[in-house]
Amino acid sequence: MITLDTLHPSLGDPLLTSMNFLNEIAGRYPDALSLAAGTPHEGFYDVEDVHRALRRFCDHLRTEDGRSEEEVRRTLLQYGRTKGVIHDLIARQLATDEGITVDPEAILITTGCQEALFLTLRALRRDDRDVLLAVSPAYIGVSGAARLLDLPVHPVAEGPYGIDVADLADRIGKARVEGLRPRALYLVPDHANPSGLRMPLPVRRDLLDLATAEDILILEDNPYGLFPLDGDRLPTLKALDEAATPRVVHLGSLSKTVFPGARIGYAVADQRVEDGPYLADVLARAKSMVTVNTSPIAQAVAGGRLLEHDCSLVRATEREAAHYRGTLLHLLDGLAACFPASGPVRWNTPAGGFFVVVEVPFEVTPEAVETSARDHGVLWTPLHHFYGSTTPLRCLRLSCSALGRSQVNEALDRFASFVMACSA
Amino acid sequence: MITLDTLHPSLGDPLLTSMNFLNEIAGRYPDALSLAAGTPHEGFYDVEDVHRALRRFCDHLRTEDGRSEEEVRRTLLQYGRTKGVIHDLIARQLATDEGITVDPEAILITTGCQEALFLTLRALRRDDRDVLLAVSPAYIGVSGAARLLDLPVHPVAEGPYGIDVADLADRIGKARVEGLRPRALYLVPDHANPSGLRMPLPVRRDLLDLATAEDILILEDNPYGLFPLDGDRLPTLKALDEAATPRVVHLGSLSKTVFPGARIGYAVADQRVEDGPYLADVLARAKSMVTVNTSPIAQAVAGGRLLEHDCSLVRATEREAAHYRGTLLHLLDGLAACFPASGPVRWNTPAGGFFVVVEVPFEVTPEAVETSARDHGVLWTPLHHFYGSTTPLRCLRLSCSALGRSQVNEALDRFASFVMACSA
Repeated sequence: MITLDTLHPSLGDPLLTSMNFLNEIAGRYPDALSLAAGTPHEGFYDVEDVHRALRRFCDHLRTEDGRSEEEVRRTLLQYGRTKGVIHDLIARQLATDEGITVDPEAILITTGCQEALFLTLRALRRDDRDVLLAVSPAYIGVSGAARLLDLPVHPVAEGPYGIDVADLADRIGKARVEGLRPRALYLVPDHANPSGLRMPLPVRRDLLDLATAEDILILEDNPYGLFPLDGDRLPTLKALDEAATPRVVHLGSLSKTVFPGARIGYAVADQRVEDGPYLADVLARAKSMVTVNTSPIAQAVAGGRLLEHDCSLVRATEREAAHYRGTLLHLLDGLAACFPASGPVRWNTPAGGFFVVVEVPFEVTPEAVETSARDHGVLWTPLHHFYGSTTPLRCLRLSCSALGRSQVNEALDRFASFVMACSA
Repeated sequence: MITLDTLHPSLGDPLLTSMNFLNEIAGRYPDALSLAAGTPHEGFYDVEDVHRALRRFCDHLRTEDGRSEEEVRRTLLQYGRTKGVIHDLIARQLATDEGITVDPEAILITTGCQEALFLTLRALRRDDRDVLLAVSPAYIGVSGAARLLDLPVHPVAEGPYGIDVADLADRIGKARVEGLRPRALYLVPDHANPSGLRMPLPVRRDLLDLATAEDILILEDNPYGLFPLDGDRLPTLKALDEAATPRVVHLGSLSKTVFPGARIGYAVADQRVEDGPYLADVLARAKSMVTVNTSPIAQAVAGGRLLEHDCSLVRATEREAAHYRGTLLHLLDGLAACFPASGPVRWNTPAGGFFVVVEVPFEVTPEAVETSARDHGVLWTPLHHFYGSTTPLRCLRLSCSALGRSQVNEALDRFASFVMACSA
């Protein structure tokens, strides 16, 4: 028998088992509606889209790239370039949608954005003096990847603007006094998970200035940027990153805009390493020992979808953006209808994305999750998961991305009955 | 500017750059024939096979699993089960082809076999006292993954039988005396890379006995098992692993039998952790922070190919097995025709697989690789790469898996002219 205390400590960490805990509850109560899942809405996809996208990408290789039938076959079916085969299409998409101009060679295609994040953290963690800074609360995947790599995460206050830049400066200074090396800051500037906050433009500029002054990298994760509630988008940190020495590693996901099932993400890492290769090339060395390369079949599916919309995800996701905006507004309206403004239940108004944080008048324990699923038929996520902590808070996260409006209504009714029962 | 000495030490390690070095040479001399690449022969594949396999898998979900159209769509296009969606098909394949009976829940589907290996090493490396044992010379991917995880690899003598079990016992003992924890032995029992050796049955039994006595795991990597030169296959270590506490983690690849472009591998990890979950479940916790899940579209392609052959890869790869056998025999005959038996150039006779090791009367340096590509138009792999070393040896590895017979003839002529020039 193997005991957990002989395995890497992260594998017994509550953070890494918290997702499993939610999945397990979901499995035991299959009729519960999920306000927990941050998965995209399925209504816009069909299996035939996969076939069409594959054909579109192969046609592109033949006509635009002038590849022979043998080369097309080799591109899809063989091992391939470690950095990927749709880097040029991603570069076009970033130029079209984000005004980011980057050499395609500085883009590393990965098995989902999570791998891009994992590889970047692997590269930056040289020894036990290296630390990562992250706006807190944070996406569970960043804390989990860091724990898997024995990389401590120092929290930075989020404040009302997505990051408290003064607190960041303070944390960097304190870490250095302790003999540590703060290497990078991780954050989601657009519609953060879980808080939904969007960083104002001046804060973005202040953050870039501080990163340059303090010589740290910024890991900008951008899964929700195309889904603002007001229809307006701010420039990403990468678009503003115009210093001679780039500060931002931009982490991108196609899971919310193409399909999650393709598992395609990427890192834009155009920093030079010793005046030689891009950081993307050095990350590729690590990738060659983790997954070798990203499935070119999966890349072809994502690439074909990009090509169908002239490499614009803004155009590709017009329906999706309208849907997410509508559903999020519907959720916010529904909360207002369920809970009196003067009452103890409060929530934020996100600038976009998939999530709303709700404050409740009781501690949100694992038992509360199970009670909600079993007795009220509704799932959601306790907020302490996003603090990498096991101490229950009086907050939870609701997500409405996967649901339609009528399901949101039903889920909110169930959620209100759960809150009522716990508040009694 | 980022300097290499601020990044993880593995990223500047010659081992992780050695593959890159070969790719770079190949890129500079595109007309060179490759006896370096261990990639499968492409002649049996076609892009339409991908479409057909996808449809076959979806039909299977509808008819055999009784899933609705909505469930089929969700299975392919959404995020999904961390452990994968074709675990039941892999379990059937292992039962059919290998006589391995295993609970499908103990199988973790991964982004290529490399990820299965990486996750297993991550789990087993708790702190700096843990070490891995590996038969030396070894596949570069195991040494590279270990370096990425700061896990030292202690070499074990290969001997004439694929492993020297007495040397293994000795190495385990020595590591323990040094206060270290030998956790597992990595090896390829069937047609090792690079040596081509196949472990005889009694050695397999001795190895399992020793692993039980010494309480270490065996990581059995099996990419080439279906391609014996004599047509005979021996039982895998996993098939022989019948102790109450399983000793073998079986690492499987579909890259040599389905297509590399699907990037589908798996780990069979049926060890119980604290009488609870399988080791596969614990590895899945790590996977959720590395790649989240394996592309279900890519899994569907692999799954469809399995279903087309009643989940038998032996049946699916009859043509491939005949091709690899024929090409390897052709390469061995060609070597005999090029180099006199009494001369200084010698080579082994592998039991199967893709590789032949050749001894030459000069040091196989990086410069020799370039000379061979530039002046003689042929690529191959220096053997010191497989020792995780930068000290040139008088040996190199030839691979003929990707080539047809006429290409092997031409490549061997070029190789002979290179050897002649260097021996002069």
